[in-house]
Amino acid sequence: MTYCVALRLEAGMIFASDSRTNAGVDQVSTFSKMRVYEKPGERVIVTLTSGNLAMTQGVIEILERRARADEATRSLWNVESLYDAALIVGEAVREMHRRDAAFLAQSHIELHSDLIVGGQIAGEAPRLFHIYSQGNFIEATDETPWFQLGESKYGKPILDRVISPATPQKEAAKCVLISFDSTMKSNISVGLPIDLLWYPRDSLRVGLRHRIREGDPYFTMLRARWAGGLRRVFAELPEPDWLD
Amino acid sequence: MTYCVALRLEAGMIFASDSRTNAGVDQVSTFSKMRVYEKPGERVIVTLTSGNLAMTQGVIEILERRARADEATRSLWNVESLYDAALIVGEAVREMHRRDAAFLAQSHIELHSDLIVGGQIAGEAPRLFHIYSQGNFIEATDETPWFQLGESKYGKPILDRVISPATPQKEAAKCVLISFDSTMKSNISVGLPIDLLWYPRDSLRVGLRHRIREGDPYFTMLRARWAGGLRRVFAELPEPDWLD
Repeated sequence: MTYCVALRLEAGMIFASDSRTNAGVDQVSTFSKMRVYEKPGERVIVTLTSGNLAMTQGVIEILERRARADEATRSLWNVESLYDAALIVGEAVREMHRRDAAFLAQSHIELHSDLIVGGQIAGEAPRLFHIYSQGNFIEATDETPWFQLGESKYGKPILDRVISPATPQKEAAKCVLISFDSTMKSNISVGLPIDLLWYPRDSLRVGLRHRIREGDPYFTMLRARWAGGLRRVFAELPEPDWLD
Repeated sequence: MTYCVALRLEAGMIFASDSRTNAGVDQVSTFSKMRVYEKPGERVIVTLTSGNLAMTQGVIEILERRARADEATRSLWNVESLYDAALIVGEAVREMHRRDAAFLAQSHIELHSDLIVGGQIAGEAPRLFHIYSQGNFIEATDETPWFQLGESKYGKPILDRVISPATPQKEAAKCVLISFDSTMKSNISVGLPIDLLWYPRDSLRVGLRHRIREGDPYFTMLRARWAGGLRRVFAELPEPDWLD
């Protein structure tokens, strides 16, 4: 399983992904789910992936082959709009479907792969897209400025309560990490390390890449104090006087 | 969608269910998902249902026809063990499958219905079972003293953090209602009223039935103070100093 979050804030964008992959509990591995295409001063594009690992690696390979091809080939390195980046990713998803879906269906395995593609290209505002397994996609708006991939339910309530476009980046990063904590607490198939990327709006370069590993001081403190705080708030709530 | 929770505590048992049913957003109705079979001094058996409404109503009808039949027919009114109650419910689920599954499959609708059956019969300790769509079932233990049905993920973290067999009933009821709040906040297909039943261990009679409707003073206060408390704890957590 996977957990990824991406936010499009007024201040910039935050991308975060776990890195645990499993095919059954006896086959758990670490694979980064974040890819970054950066040409400083011109573009930053980030992809986050979820779904069958064979599928998502295939999609990434298609994207990277296009990126290494000649300038005439449309790729994440030369499209002029994030919308076209989303189109290219959606097309790669469909190419993998054409290649693998029928064979996997014979073993009753459904091919699925959801991706997030976001960032900024010079001349455009920052944009964020969620690409579905079918290759179609939606774009984040001010009403819904964030997307999740994978095991999204445990970590959704805190995002719902906190995140709006105006949320400052530090508060947003804290919220994203608490969202990961909730997810990791309830689903062992989501695990450290967490890759976190901060992109400051209009900078056209990556602001920060941070890998949160086991024992990371900030994340460890955050988890402990959040758990303690929840227990305290819960304990302070009055009990029902109608139940005796 | 549905949300139900049942706890088997040292002090007794709590059952809770929402009552919203939907077949698409334009067809939302209220149906109680809780049935109680009480013969004071001898037995209290509670069923909670989730899944296709046609299926769960069919299961309940089968159970109630058996219950109204002569004494020779094994029913929830005369079995001598909760385990046999779970068997009867599982058999009713399978009967509905035999009747409906093939026809629904023609319309690509999968028949599913998860149930909780719990309570106490004189001569036994309180017991709690989760019956699957296939009619097989599992029993709650001291390690896992609670079950959920339906839209379970949003409301699971608070149960994970709070509930153990030793939890007193008032604290447990408070926790169950916060679990409902988290679920209702994130999934509009789970809605009020909530039916809550408290069964004090070894009493062999229902301790309390309480219906929580829109505007219920305790639940309204709980939701507001929990939300405020979460925001306060979140605000007090330090922000990451590595993100500038």
